[in-house]
Amino acid sequence: MDRQRHQGMPKNTYMRWRLPLVCLLWEVAMIVLFGVFVRFGAEADAHWEEEKQEMNLTSDIENDFYFRYPSFQDVHVMIFVGFGFLMTFLKRYGFGAVGFNFLLAAFGIQWALLMQGWFHSFKDGKILIGVENLINADFCVGSVCIAFGAILGKTSPIQLLVMTLFQVTLFSVNEYILLNLLHVKDAGGSMTIHTFGAYFGLTVTRILYRPNLEQSKDKQGSVYHSDLFAMIGTLYLWMYWPSFNSAISDHGDAQHRSAINTYCSLAACVLTTMAFSSMLQKKGKLDMVHIQNATLAGGVAVGTSAEMMLTPYGSLIVGSISGIVSTVGYVYFTPFLESRLHIQDTCGIHNLHAMPGLIGGIVGAITAAAATEDVYGKEGFIKAFDFTGVYQTRTPSIQGGFQAAGIVVSLLMAFAGGAIVGGILKLPIWGDAAAENCFEDGVYWEVPEDEESDVYHMHNPDKPASP
Amino acid sequence: MDRQRHQGMPKNTYMRWRLPLVCLLWEVAMIVLFGVFVRFGAEADAHWEEEKQEMNLTSDIENDFYFRYPSFQDVHVMIFVGFGFLMTFLKRYGFGAVGFNFLLAAFGIQWALLMQGWFHSFKDGKILIGVENLINADFCVGSVCIAFGAILGKTSPIQLLVMTLFQVTLFSVNEYILLNLLHVKDAGGSMTIHTFGAYFGLTVTRILYRPNLEQSKDKQGSVYHSDLFAMIGTLYLWMYWPSFNSAISDHGDAQHRSAINTYCSLAACVLTTMAFSSMLQKKGKLDMVHIQNATLAGGVAVGTSAEMMLTPYGSLIVGSISGIVSTVGYVYFTPFLESRLHIQDTCGIHNLHAMPGLIGGIVGAITAAAATEDVYGKEGFIKAFDFTGVYQTRTPSIQGGFQAAGIVVSLLMAFAGGAIVGGILKLPIWGDAAAENCFEDGVYWEVPEDEESDVYHMHNPDKPASP
Amino acid sequence: MDRQRHQGMPKNTYMRWRLPLVCLLWEVAMIVLFGVFVRFGAEADAHWEEEKQEMNLTSDIENDFYFRYPSFQDVHVMIFVGFGFLMTFLKRYGFGAVGFNFLLAAFGIQWALLMQGWFHSFKDGKILIGVENLINADFCVGSVCIAFGAILGKTSPIQLLVMTLFQVTLFSVNEYILLNLLHVKDAGGSMTIHTFGAYFGLTVTRILYRPNLEQSKDKQGSVYHSDLFAMIGTLYLWMYWPSFNSAISDHGDAQHRSAINTYCSLAACVLTTMAFSSMLQKKGKLDMVHIQNATLAGGVAVGTSAEMMLTPYGSLIVGSISGIVSTVGYVYFTPFLESRLHIQDTCGIHNLHAMPGLIGGIVGAITAAAATEDVYGKEGFIKAFDFTGVYQTRTPSIQGGFQAAGIVVSLLMAFAGGAIVGGILKLPIWGDAAAENCFEDGVYWEVPEDEESDVYHMHNPDKPASP
Repeated sequence: MDRQRHQGMPKNTYMRWRLPLVCLLWEVAMIVLFGVFVRFGAEADAHWEEEKQEMNLTSDIENDFYFRYPSFQDVHVMIFVGFGFLMTFLKRYGFGAVGFNFLLAAFGIQWALLMQGWFHSFKDGKILIGVENLINADFCVGSVCIAFGAILGKTSPIQLLVMTLFQVTLFSVNEYILLNLLHVKDAGGSMTIHTFGAYFGLTVTRILYRPNLEQSKDKQGSVYHSDLFAMIGTLYLWMYWPSFNSAISDHGDAQHRSAINTYCSLAACVLTTMAFSSMLQKKGKLDMVHIQNATLAGGVAVGTSAEMMLTPYGSLIVGSISGIVSTVGYVYFTPFLESRLHIQDTCGIHNLHAMPGLIGGIVGAITAAAATEDVYGKEGFIKAFDFTGVYQTRTPSIQGGFQAAGIVVSLLMAFAGGAIVGGILKLPIWGDAAAENCFEDGVYWEVPEDEESDVYHMHNPDKPASP
Repeated sequence: MDRQRHQGMPKNTYMRWRLPLVCLLWEVAMIVLFGVFVRFGAEADAHWEEEKQEMNLTSDIENDFYFRYPSFQDVHVMIFVGFGFLMTFLKRYGFGAVGFNFLLAAFGIQWALLMQGWFHSFKDGKILIGVENLINADFCVGSVCIAFGAILGKTSPIQLLVMTLFQVTLFSVNEYILLNLLHVKDAGGSMTIHTFGAYFGLTVTRILYRPNLEQSKDKQGSVYHSDLFAMIGTLYLWMYWPSFNSAISDHGDAQHRSAINTYCSLAACVLTTMAFSSMLQKKGKLDMVHIQNATLAGGVAVGTSAEMMLTPYGSLIVGSISGIVSTVGYVYFTPFLESRLHIQDTCGIHNLHAMPGLIGGIVGAITAAAATEDVYGKEGFIKAFDFTGVYQTRTPSIQGGFQAAGIVVSLLMAFAGGAIVGGILKLPIWGDAAAENCFEDGVYWEVPEDEESDVYHMHNPDKPASP
Repeated sequence: MDRQRHQGMPKNTYMRWRLPLVCLLWEVAMIVLFGVFVRFGAEADAHWEEEKQEMNLTSDIENDFYFRYPSFQDVHVMIFVGFGFLMTFLKRYGFGAVGFNFLLAAFGIQWALLMQGWFHSFKDGKILIGVENLINADFCVGSVCIAFGAILGKTSPIQLLVMTLFQVTLFSVNEYILLNLLHVKDAGGSMTIHTFGAYFGLTVTRILYRPNLEQSKDKQGSVYHSDLFAMIGTLYLWMYWPSFNSAISDHGDAQHRSAINTYCSLAACVLTTMAFSSMLQKKGKLDMVHIQNATLAGGVAVGTSAEMMLTPYGSLIVGSISGIVSTVGYVYFTPFLESRLHIQDTCGIHNLHAMPGLIGGIVGAITAAAATEDVYGKEGFIKAFDFTGVYQTRTPSIQGGFQAAGIVVSLLMAFAGGAIVGGILKLPIWGDAAAENCFEDGVYWEVPEDEESDVYHMHNPDKPASP
């Protein structure tokens, strides 16, 4: 008890009534809102038999399900196994990494189906959903998983749910501004998912700054096997990223092209990451933190441009640069952000998502501005940028300008939103742990006894620390 | 030796001749039976070139392979990685969980291809197989993996193979009765896979009741990293369950709809599981057992109705309820079953598969009974329930009745079959371990020495227990 | 320092300038070569809109992307997670197994896109790539991952990159000879990938023979959890092998058939592996090494014939035999190869890839020689073996002869290439570790301190071995 008094108020991390209440009330709200609003889209509804005839479709294979379902499943794996396991690198926070990611994503996709549905799939008072909505919901939640990376180990599950509620909402507004008002292309979400998600998370963690975090310094590292668990997350993110960037691109060549560009960018990124990881360490040894994270920057950095005619060598260039930027970020920027700006970024999302996301937005703007009918073909050009209807007169350079505007809007939304949500999360009612118990599963989880004793500082004064 | 005498006969777990004999003889039998019966179906046969022309198909994409192969691979991952790793939560039974699951499933799919083939794909004396048969074989084996969960750690590999042989046979008979005689819909197998598999396994473990199992109590728990391995299984089951429930649905909207319903149900299930896991623990801490298992109940509970017009909010309701039922089951029913009914259910399949399977069957019956032409469309209605030929006159309410009958038949088959097979497995010739060596890989596996010494009670009197 | 003097020259494993230099220079070379040569193929180019009209395609679903992308992703998982995690079985080489596999594969796929592109996709001075090129690049790298298995733990990352550079080159030449000059069928690569890759790797490891390797004997084993990590690799290879063997087969029945044959072969292989693993161990216990590896031999052994009319029972026979051969190989051949032929084969690739690869080549030759128009249908026969143009007059028996020639060519290329590359890798400039530090991540990786101390023999004389 003595030690706690020195650190101000003892923290109440008791979840027994708060967490169930939030989970159950919100789930009831989801049921009611789904009941009022959500219905099957035409291609998932049993009326499709008749729809098919009206649309003159001769085969069931024309159902969007067959164009997108394999990519959807890959994206699904990225959100739940990819992000979940990537964050298990901490020696004593594996349950929280995988489990809380699971919780927030499961809630987030429901709320995202509603929010994005109201903006994009609303017809006659109903939200009509299909496989593309499922992908977009996963995408939206991806931005929350990114933000989670910044505050990993320092928040209660309730704080994560509250953050998810607000972040999904803001994400959907930002996405609507970019895609519908600015008419920006961003299929892989460099701006909407990565830039927005990362700067939102960084702002939140700045607001939640913990001056005494060095008290749990011993738990901020990894152990040998936790690094291997994290590599499962890394590899699934890396392998399936071509699906991520191509999942909602136009049918046909656009999906095909997105996958190729992303594949190339990621391959190049691995080499420059390894190079700089070795170069920046005194003994020339590779650092698992870089391999686990910076190798993925290439996927983030082509998120906007992958479906454009970036070309394979363009992708190699973008991937190479983003691997370097990301690795340098881990070595120099992360310590700087913590010591000078008081931004405690547990997973280094600034290096993996924020900077590569900005690169992605910029590369997208340049690629769009450089587009010509010669490169895309007359019809391909119109289709690629959707220069139809009111956008018929848009030129590539104007499109490039709007793309750039998309970056700025995403940043502003992230900073403003993150500041407000960070303020809400700072309220002393959400049950976050004391600094000395951060990065420790034992606070919110029943942990097998045999390994628990020596790392967990027990709060319970009745129970000795080492039984 | 002294200790063993107290426990009756020392157990002979020597597998050297028994296991190879069973594996090799049965594989030879498979080869002979496949040689006599199994051939490629039309879409996998080289004659397909001509077949295509006869069927007026203009594109190779019409081959069923492209409709179902991605789902098949997802299901395949669920059976081998999903079930295999889900069961690695025990601290010293990881090899057995993954390895025996691998063995029984590899045998089971061969035998299932034959059994199901005789019932469903038999033409002119041959079983004609395609990708749908592979999925169905995986499904059938899924029910064995479920039953394995009840007896995990307490049986020899030979017992598992014997159980697989009988269970696959009974599964196929039950499936034939339901699908062909009762004309029941059960695409995701709430009844045929989960209800049947779980109650079969529970009956077997009841018959194999071990009164002295508390002797291996120290090995019935998990360690930190074994819980993370188990989460790999959980997440792959959770993520790919939409593929499971939609894999053999009709092409087009039915597959699309099944995936959406399952996605929604599973998302809701996570929230109610987390809520009740925290609520039912004195300190409000989350329990990994619940997160690993009860979060999946939502997939089981929409197994029958997912391809129907359950609607997204209906799925949320079903998923929410099943998460609650399953978590409550782990806290209250599992101890009750063990102490009062002598049902030792290692993985708690009663909570994950039996009760949610029943819910799934009931929800399916209700959804079928409530179907109207208005909701499904005239053609969609007939297609969804296959009300053609002799079933042309069936009404939804009659269909609902038959669906309910399907539950009862599955239960009866499970109890009767489980009792018989349990009796066979009780014979003292299969090489199961003594109670004190249950849940211990060292009995049937060569285990790396460094960690073995302190947990494995050696049988060899020449070798001291702790070298 | 004393100890090192006894073993000759102390080894300089300092990577700080060498590894970054190689990675960066080579990546720049890739960018330049991609810039000069690589462009999108027709189906990934924005001109596809016009192309579609010219080709009279009515639907985007006809894009090759939809025929092959799901299989591509499965293959991608096999290369990065499958091979990567399969090799994590060593207790202290998990980072190297997953990380170096990641590095060499990421470089290899870029170089393979170029090499294979020049041979197979070169048109008007440009290499035109699509999803099939991505699969082929992954395949090519697969042969490097196989060779990596033989030298696992004994080489520096630079040696691996040098080997990758040469092996990808030789692979592409060999593949060109087989597929284009001999007109051989080898969709799953029994000859081009497995036979070539394995004998290449075995030759390299023979040249790099380390007489004092017993000094690191304590690190050549596994620990309990490293065996479970390796099972992740095993299962993903096993489950996705049907995709591997069918990924580049002709659209339609050929892809369908390849998947079925491979599924059957692998299922049978598991049973015979388990049987012989138990039979060949004195106490009848199963050996994780066999389960992790020999269960996969069935996939290798149908790599050539899977797309032919091998039939399901033929696949069971091939799978059964290859499981036996492979397991026997681990028990008897591997020790023999090491003690008599000085071939130190860390992962036993001789048993998993070399022998089953030869079986695969032979089975392919026999199956081709036995082909008849009756079995394949008139059109199917021509399509299956591509007996068009100059090959119009080829008979099955001649095809069988060419298939056999393909095995011989692959072997000769592997021996000659392996000898030359082994000689290059023997140069004392690449930074490989001393014998006593083989199989130890600490040489090239920053390893979490808590577990490092007791297994890593420190080189730094200033720092005591056990702090």
